[in-house]
Amino acid sequence: MRTFLDCIPCFYRQALEASRLAGLTETTQKQLILELSQNIEMFLSDTAPPEVARMVYDIINKHANTQDIYQKVKKQCNEFALTLYPELKKRIKEADNSLLLAAELAIAGNIIDYGAKNSLDIDDEVNNILNESSELFQIANKKIFDFVAFQNKTHQAKSILYLADNAGEVVFDKLLIETIKQVNNKVDIYYAVKAKPIINDALIEDAMQCGIDQFAAVLSSGSSLSGTILPYCTQEFLDLFYKADMVISKGQGNFEGLHDAARDIFFLFIAKCPIIANMVQGKIGNMLLFYKPTK
Amino acid sequence: MRTFLDCIPCFYRQALEASRLAGLTETTQKQLILELSQNIEMFLSDTAPPEVARMVYDIINKHANTQDIYQKVKKQCNEFALTLYPELKKRIKEADNSLLLAAELAIAGNIIDYGAKNSLDIDDEVNNILNESSELFQIANKKIFDFVAFQNKTHQAKSILYLADNAGEVVFDKLLIETIKQVNNKVDIYYAVKAKPIINDALIEDAMQCGIDQFAAVLSSGSSLSGTILPYCTQEFLDLFYKADMVISKGQGNFEGLHDAARDIFFLFIAKCPIIANMVQGKIGNMLLFYKPTK
Repeated sequence: MRTFLDCIPCFYRQALEASRLAGLTETTQKQLILELSQNIEMFLSDTAPPEVARMVYDIINKHANTQDIYQKVKKQCNEFALTLYPELKKRIKEADNSLLLAAELAIAGNIIDYGAKNSLDIDDEVNNILNESSELFQIANKKIFDFVAFQNKTHQAKSILYLADNAGEVVFDKLLIETIKQVNNKVDIYYAVKAKPIINDALIEDAMQCGIDQFAAVLSSGSSLSGTILPYCTQEFLDLFYKADMVISKGQGNFEGLHDAARDIFFLFIAKCPIIANMVQGKIGNMLLFYKPTK
Repeated sequence: MRTFLDCIPCFYRQALEASRLAGLTETTQKQLILELSQNIEMFLSDTAPPEVARMVYDIINKHANTQDIYQKVKKQCNEFALTLYPELKKRIKEADNSLLLAAELAIAGNIIDYGAKNSLDIDDEVNNILNESSELFQIANKKIFDFVAFQNKTHQAKSILYLADNAGEVVFDKLLIETIKQVNNKVDIYYAVKAKPIINDALIEDAMQCGIDQFAAVLSSGSSLSGTILPYCTQEFLDLFYKADMVISKGQGNFEGLHDAARDIFFLFIAKCPIIANMVQGKIGNMLLFYKPTK
């Protein structure tokens, strides 16, 4: 998808929040805002939101003199999510439908998103979601929570490409991947992360810190955008993307990049902006398991 | 107060919403966004938010080829609020403390704000607030709801200057002014509106449509900003402002312009942005009766 006019205020908000996290002075924050303003025309020139985000964070990184302002935050998110792991694994094991709960938790883990919300209260938010009833999940609405199709496909697939979103969230992905392996012990799973730091998106080091390599082959997509946009990806990734029996895509950024890709995809994410929510006929805050068939 | 960096994303959002209300095409909306971007440096040059809002809405008006994109909306808001008037008047009459309920309703009426929220569901929002318990009002917190000081002053004042905020809200102001007149029949009340159209701020015609002239002398402040900034006001207004025994100021825009003025003021408004909420040590959504003493 292209960048909408409504994305512009959101990018300014993200830039301010990120620049404060990076400890930039108010004078530098102002320079940053002015620099963004000079680039608005380029942002609106047929670019996708993850491409604009890349440009915005490159400007922030330049001012902060770093390649990764979220490095510490990502490590902390991984550590926090790992503390939840034993309890969540127990809950999944004891659930009536382990795959359903594991999928729900993987979607809930998508709350750990520093692009949409720069909160230091991630632990509170995750705990709130985990303590909510499954009303948050629109299970009754097959259009935006197509668990039946998801269940069928996970049982049959011989290969699954799983597209990661954020650090910390990786632990929730690990739980889903483990559960898929239990219902289908013949499946090969590939877990694709970003190539270079962008917001709090997971990198190889996050996948390793969370131990997802115990259950899946970890690879980089080659892209350093906050969403998967195919022309930025490696040939190895593209081969997997088109040949895998099933693609599971986490997060809004990947949806932005892949919602019109030439293959079927299961998008698991929380709708965080009105434009995306509208595209799937859902609402902000909806926990989505959205199936996009091959066109 | 000066314009904060955080105000920038908010102005872009307002500009987009207002330009859609004005029926501008997407191409024109894009031109508008680019024009705003070229002016960001000026916006951040020691100007107050109401001054920036004036510049933003001047740009929108130019593209929409009108002086008042909210003309129809304002008329509708007045009409809607007038339909509530008999029921609200009855409730105030029957209340244990009529002045308290009238003050609460005057604050609740501040929800009718097209700068902060461009909602077509104003009637729903007002009804929601009216049906809520008084928990929304932080009466227990004297710091942000100083009703005792307000009550004492309304009983003693010989002259009150009441600064209007939005169309529609005027009907709620009328109820409060009527009630003040009942507890203090010797007071002269002056109701000051904006001089020219800005967002959905009340003008003389709105005061007249709502019939507030039955209980107060209506005047223009001389300012066409969305908040009262004294250097933009007429001498007549300034004389009243400094000589009145009591000043009641409605809305966030007036707070932005007057929170450090050289006299005591009662600010009645709903906190609609994190910066303002923070300034009074409250939260977004708080119903505020905030007393600022003379420094």
